Amino acid sequence: MRTRPLKVALLGCGVVGSEVARIMTTHADDLAARIGAPIELAGVAVRRPDKVREGIPRELITTDATALVKRGDIDVVVEVIGGIEPARSLITTAFEHGASVVSANKALLAQDGTDLHAAAEANNKDLYYEAAVAGAIPLIRPLRESLAGDKVNRVLGIVNGTTNFILDKMDSTGAGYQEALDEATALGYAEADPTADVEGFDAAAKAAILAGIAFHTRVRLDDVYREGMTEVTAADFASAKEMGCTIKLLAICERAEDGQSVTARVHPAMIPLTHPLASVRGAYNAVFVESDASGQLMFYGPGAGGSPTASAVLGDLVAVCRNRLSGTTGPGESAYAALPVSGMGDVVTRYHISLDVADKPGVLAQVATVFAEHGVSIDTVRQQGKDGEASLVVVTHRASDAALGGTVEALRKLDTVRGVASIMRVEGE
Amino acid sequence: MRTRPLKVALLGCGVVGSEVARIMTTHADDLAARIGAPIELAGVAVRRPDKVREGIPRELITTDATALVKRGDIDVVVEVIGGIEPARSLITTAFEHGASVVSANKALLAQDGTDLHAAAEANNKDLYYEAAVAGAIPLIRPLRESLAGDKVNRVLGIVNGTTNFILDKMDSTGAGYQEALDEATALGYAEADPTADVEGFDAAAKAAILAGIAFHTRVRLDDVYREGMTEVTAADFASAKEMGCTIKLLAICERAEDGQSVTARVHPAMIPLTHPLASVRGAYNAVFVESDASGQLMFYGPGAGGSPTASAVLGDLVAVCRNRLSGTTGPGESAYAALPVSGMGDVVTRYHISLDVADKPGVLAQVATVFAEHGVSIDTVRQQGKDGEASLVVVTHRASDAALGGTVEALRKLDTVRGVASIMRVEGE
Repeated sequence: MRTRPLKVALLGCGVVGSEVARIMTTHADDLAARIGAPIELAGVAVRRPDKVREGIPRELITTDATALVKRGDIDVVVEVIGGIEPARSLITTAFEHGASVVSANKALLAQDGTDLHAAAEANNKDLYYEAAVAGAIPLIRPLRESLAGDKVNRVLGIVNGTTNFILDKMDSTGAGYQEALDEATALGYAEADPTADVEGFDAAAKAAILAGIAFHTRVRLDDVYREGMTEVTAADFASAKEMGCTIKLLAICERAEDGQSVTARVHPAMIPLTHPLASVRGAYNAVFVESDASGQLMFYGPGAGGSPTASAVLGDLVAVCRNRLSGTTGPGESAYAALPVSGMGDVVTRYHISLDVADKPGVLAQVATVFAEHGVSIDTVRQQGKDGEASLVVVTHRASDAALGGTVEALRKLDTVRGVASIMRVEGE
Repeated sequence: MRTRPLKVALLGCGVVGSEVARIMTTHADDLAARIGAPIELAGVAVRRPDKVREGIPRELITTDATALVKRGDIDVVVEVIGGIEPARSLITTAFEHGASVVSANKALLAQDGTDLHAAAEANNKDLYYEAAVAGAIPLIRPLRESLAGDKVNRVLGIVNGTTNFILDKMDSTGAGYQEALDEATALGYAEADPTADVEGFDAAAKAAILAGIAFHTRVRLDDVYREGMTEVTAADFASAKEMGCTIKLLAICERAEDGQSVTARVHPAMIPLTHPLASVRGAYNAVFVESDASGQLMFYGPGAGGSPTASAVLGDLVAVCRNRLSGTTGPGESAYAALPVSGMGDVVTRYHISLDVADKPGVLAQVATVFAEHGVSIDTVRQQGKDGEASLVVVTHRASDAALGGTVEALRKLDTVRGVASIMRVEGE
């Protein structure tokens, strides 16, 4: 084994960073054996230098992250600051000054992954980011390496633990959204401002990254259709139960049936209770992958948290260090397929639509006509009437989002339709 | 991209081999883009050269596998023959003549993995075998690379599809073992001679491979305790249901609580219905991994079949070809931890024991005394009596297998114990 250590610079020392530093110290011998050389924490860039950080020697702490990545003797920079800047500049500077990079930064990777990959490649360095998607769950490596000989057609995942906790709570207790959110906040599963989670921004960033890797195609964050889960109601869960379904916030990356384009989207959807994703509880994440040869695979585990994320970072760190020792780099961005990314209108799926209608003869015929005129085929209809008011629950066969949108617009114009109570996509069948 | 193709020799052209050849042809462009060079099927060694093999040019077929691996211009040998010989000699010869190897051969890897890894390393070549465990499920790469910075404490898996199909059938229909086996055979899930599956030999080979990788320790096939599932009865499933459990044939690799030794075993066990492994249906496989930092991960997918296994082989083939192009090799055997492998007596778990006893006063006191004398603490006891006969169901707290064995031996000697109807371990709690 080489005795001269590889030098690691840590950018950020919050929940994840401090755990990375801790494991680097406590598991030093194991890591050295697995890498083939010891690794040494060479510097830690933080915002608050005065905070006591157990186990990290005072002299390693700096507030000058730029100087740290410019030192020239750093082998690997571990970026766990998050956000776009200064993370982006620091990573680019690190490549230019000879370091490879391990990052857990989903927002940055989703927005600027292509540029960062290009910078890594230009400097013949590695950029690894297993921790950016679904925490500790090995997902990027399996997609990019294990399935490298296969053709992935769909990635369907629960990639946000906060929203899964809330939806699971609503499902199991009958609570409303606000009540479940309050509990998630009290337990530390939701942040004080939960927007990034509940509006699907976090999941959309992960969907962009996953779609890019799965389809060997650049998928920008703007390409991802995004719909949050703040409007899911207890009534929606009741409807889902009647269908033998539950509701999950899903990130869905799909290859079109003709194979010539891809889509990526995040929205709440009904999935059958028999689907493996339906039983993913609490803040856990799981990603279901369908491919030509493998069939259906699922990867399940904790999607967030300091330790799990640190485990993913360390796995990457070992790989990058090994590459460095053998003078090579791992797989870079693979975007050779360059498939067009279609918008939401082209997505084909099934829909569950609840309508409030007048309780009089002929309403069903009117409604059915509207669906037919828009080419949306109805699978089942259920009518419930009471005191002149009635509800109509329609479940469609597969139809494009554009066709469904046109249908709903036309339905709203019918005198007999008082309102569209909910529209929910049905996935995973 | 390099235009000179990498040459691949295929040893075996059965269900898996023919699928590997097919994907190499139909996905040639994708594979070339992912590798950075085209790959070419340079030869296919088979036993029956006269069989028509669609899509494989006649001139590539040979019955002389040894000559094929000795050619000297082969970059990668894909071994999908199975069994110990001639596979072992062919792989060793391949390394000596300049080729890296991708294998799907669990029996060989479990028995001779250390020697084969040594041969690969001596010749500076790769030995990859993702397909040897759990078919298409990416498992070896995640364990050996993604979790390289973590400490794995337990691997708990359903790694044999045939037995899972049989047990699932028994669970869902109340069928007995033979009836469920007959159905599995009729549907092609079980072979004419199902011994390797139902007696746990296949799962034991996988357990040896998984334990070795998870604990960075050599685990030989002989180190794996093995108990088949042919004696699981409908009554056992009824008992499991009363416990809120089902029964699975599990491969369990564990680090002892003091971290100083490891064990590997295969046997039927009760697991709670709430455990993610409990809902693994039919012939699917799933492996649950517990580690220090990641917590609980699960990997799920088809555990066998031509296409899924071929997908795993192709993923390895892409990695090995990429390594070859960059003049490096991937991680070899990692056995630096060299932990002692303990026998079954040291395994600590819980037990569900059904006793046929005389229905008279004092029996429970006698039985409880025997448990206490052997240091096995009782969690719950349930008595059911009828016509002078009674049954006693004891569920223990955690105890060593040795202590439990001693307890059962002593119980058998009691006059009031007519027989030990069943002993089943309880896992996954």
